[in-house]
Amino acid sequence: MTTTQLNQLTHRLETINGLSKGEIGQNRLVYSPTWVSAQQQVIKWGLDLGLQVSVDDFGTTYMDIPGTVHPDQVIAVGSHIDTVAQGGRFDGLYGVLGGLQAIEDLLETAGRPKKTIRLISFSEEEGSRFPDTFTGSKHYTNQKVNLAMTDPDGISFENARKDAVGKLNLPGVTHAKPGLPSTFTELHIEQGPRLIDRQLQIGLVTAIVGQRRFTVTVKGIANHAGTTPMDERADALEMAVTLISELRSRAHELNKNLTFTVGEMHVSPNTSNVIPGFVTFSIDTRYSSENVLDKFEHIINQVVEQNQTTNITSTVNRWAKSDVTHLDDQLLSANQKIADRLGFSSTQLASGAGHDSQIMAKVTRTTMIFVPSINGISHAPEENTSKEDLLRGVELLTESLRQQAY
Amino acid sequence: MTTTQLNQLTHRLETINGLSKGEIGQNRLVYSPTWVSAQQQVIKWGLDLGLQVSVDDFGTTYMDIPGTVHPDQVIAVGSHIDTVAQGGRFDGLYGVLGGLQAIEDLLETAGRPKKTIRLISFSEEEGSRFPDTFTGSKHYTNQKVNLAMTDPDGISFENARKDAVGKLNLPGVTHAKPGLPSTFTELHIEQGPRLIDRQLQIGLVTAIVGQRRFTVTVKGIANHAGTTPMDERADALEMAVTLISELRSRAHELNKNLTFTVGEMHVSPNTSNVIPGFVTFSIDTRYSSENVLDKFEHIINQVVEQNQTTNITSTVNRWAKSDVTHLDDQLLSANQKIADRLGFSSTQLASGAGHDSQIMAKVTRTTMIFVPSINGISHAPEENTSKEDLLRGVELLTESLRQQAY
Repeated sequence: MTTTQLNQLTHRLETINGLSKGEIGQNRLVYSPTWVSAQQQVIKWGLDLGLQVSVDDFGTTYMDIPGTVHPDQVIAVGSHIDTVAQGGRFDGLYGVLGGLQAIEDLLETAGRPKKTIRLISFSEEEGSRFPDTFTGSKHYTNQKVNLAMTDPDGISFENARKDAVGKLNLPGVTHAKPGLPSTFTELHIEQGPRLIDRQLQIGLVTAIVGQRRFTVTVKGIANHAGTTPMDERADALEMAVTLISELRSRAHELNKNLTFTVGEMHVSPNTSNVIPGFVTFSIDTRYSSENVLDKFEHIINQVVEQNQTTNITSTVNRWAKSDVTHLDDQLLSANQKIADRLGFSSTQLASGAGHDSQIMAKVTRTTMIFVPSINGISHAPEENTSKEDLLRGVELLTESLRQQAY
Repeated sequence: MTTTQLNQLTHRLETINGLSKGEIGQNRLVYSPTWVSAQQQVIKWGLDLGLQVSVDDFGTTYMDIPGTVHPDQVIAVGSHIDTVAQGGRFDGLYGVLGGLQAIEDLLETAGRPKKTIRLISFSEEEGSRFPDTFTGSKHYTNQKVNLAMTDPDGISFENARKDAVGKLNLPGVTHAKPGLPSTFTELHIEQGPRLIDRQLQIGLVTAIVGQRRFTVTVKGIANHAGTTPMDERADALEMAVTLISELRSRAHELNKNLTFTVGEMHVSPNTSNVIPGFVTFSIDTRYSSENVLDKFEHIINQVVEQNQTTNITSTVNRWAKSDVTHLDDQLLSANQKIADRLGFSSTQLASGAGHDSQIMAKVTRTTMIFVPSINGISHAPEENTSKEDLLRGVELLTESLRQQAY
């Protein structure tokens, strides 16, 4: 990729990110005015390049360059256009605009492909405005989406969706949901520190971790902090601390790469001079093998069960579970060869965050390419990736699409 | 004490508690309408008995039966009339009405005393409406009270006080603050389970524990629960759990009767899929020896210091300290003999809660008598003491006053 091309990518990123000017970070929550402007801008760039653009009922945008030999075989690339509130400049958007850049480069250097290449800008992935997540890719792949949702302002998903999608009906745009592709490649920032810490340039994603979330509820007896002897307490916070300590060390014993996070905790009555009578805490645990997650779920239940006392009862409730998604081995291995040939230092790794790819992988051969995140930061205005790394990601993607579609 | 007398005590308790009818528990917050009615009722009973009643600037009520031989030597008895919000039926009130009952019994059976007996109904002890505590006994003993306080509704202490105290200016009441007494005896419910658990009838208080309160602040780095490897986290909640565990076991090692309570905890951002970056927790620790409290404060600072890491810093702030109050040995020993003579099973113990006695002990010889609290409950509508135990407390108090004043 030339300096001109890098400048074009940078310019496009800045154009979209400029729509959130004056705000803290990026705020392209699905179907918001900024989201509409961004998706409209992506469509315009596609139309300018001569791509065939269609928009579906959810506002996901598909931009095709039809294949000359096998137009029905579709090599898809893309990511999502939405962000979390006060999000970063690259999460999602880099995969969309990196894909656009790769297609433009291929058209310039190799002309039209034999197979169709499709750039997808998914409407929504983050779940930041409405409770459901991945609604764009779920709709495309005919998976169930909860339509009876409202945002915190009481606006219904359906009203927001219809209103916003109407605004994408630009001249030259077809309203349609195209068929499913033969492969899907998603370019994305890592959102963690593994590449940057090891000074690697490319991450090739083997799997997207499975994750399970639990709430542990501990019921003791609230009582006076001064008059209740230590050996007569039913201190719910003491029990919560014991459970968290034990579960953390059991997680580490089981597998040092199993993540274990207690992110949320509520203490009642939460007053310095009253022994807590009621505590809840969350557990978020993730790994790339269901077997390990099953074992750990068993351990959680066992540890909570074993720590029951006469006066303190604890219960566990699993309220979220998403299975491990194994990505395509052949595409991974092909991308590994390309990375090696281009001289990019790389590693193969599992993604600790969820991505549209885990939805796409249910219906088609799917792969992901990661570039490093500076300091491992994401979902924050400080999210950043060096221009050189942005460039390497697009170069690898370009070669992968060339190999697949030409 | 006869059945008639027990009925009178019960009737008086019910009369005052009846002023909070229809509410959850007792709500005699200082200077509230219920508080005014209660203090007025106590005054009326005192006037009916022929006691000389005065009210000071804070609304504390003093009711004297002057001594025939040494009227300047004052044997005082009493407690506070206010309650916490949604409080119980005995905390404070039992000491006031139990004192009134003892005086009535003495007048009937022994006539006027040689020394003056003074019943004190302190205006405020709980600190439930305004932030300062023990304002009644502090004012009586010329200790500093914060006058620049407002309640949660923005009403100033000074306005509330003047308004309420004006309403205690009943016919026959003098507005004055009398001199300090020679001794002070406070009858009170235990507010803990030690007497009830050991099936004892009377507790004689050796000391009121010293207490210290701290806030520990832990600063880590908030980060993604899925993409941040376990060995690269700066998890503030993990550190808080480590500190609480270690401090709890160090407290137990130091002295098994040292109380250690983490009652309050705040986690930020407090979301299940984000590693906590910031946690604060409180420590409330109490014991009857300053030496032990000093040692534990040293341990707290040491443990927090030793657990610093590159990415997680913790600090301790002590924001409250009240010293151990040793009550009078002679009065204790005299009350022990009376209890033994009356055939009441008893123990000597330190009070884990604060009382007006710790303020009075700074200026005069002070003692406390505890009766059992059913299930150790206090500061709640469920607070309760059997009639038999209420009776025993008043009988012991009556004999103590007889011995001191006749």
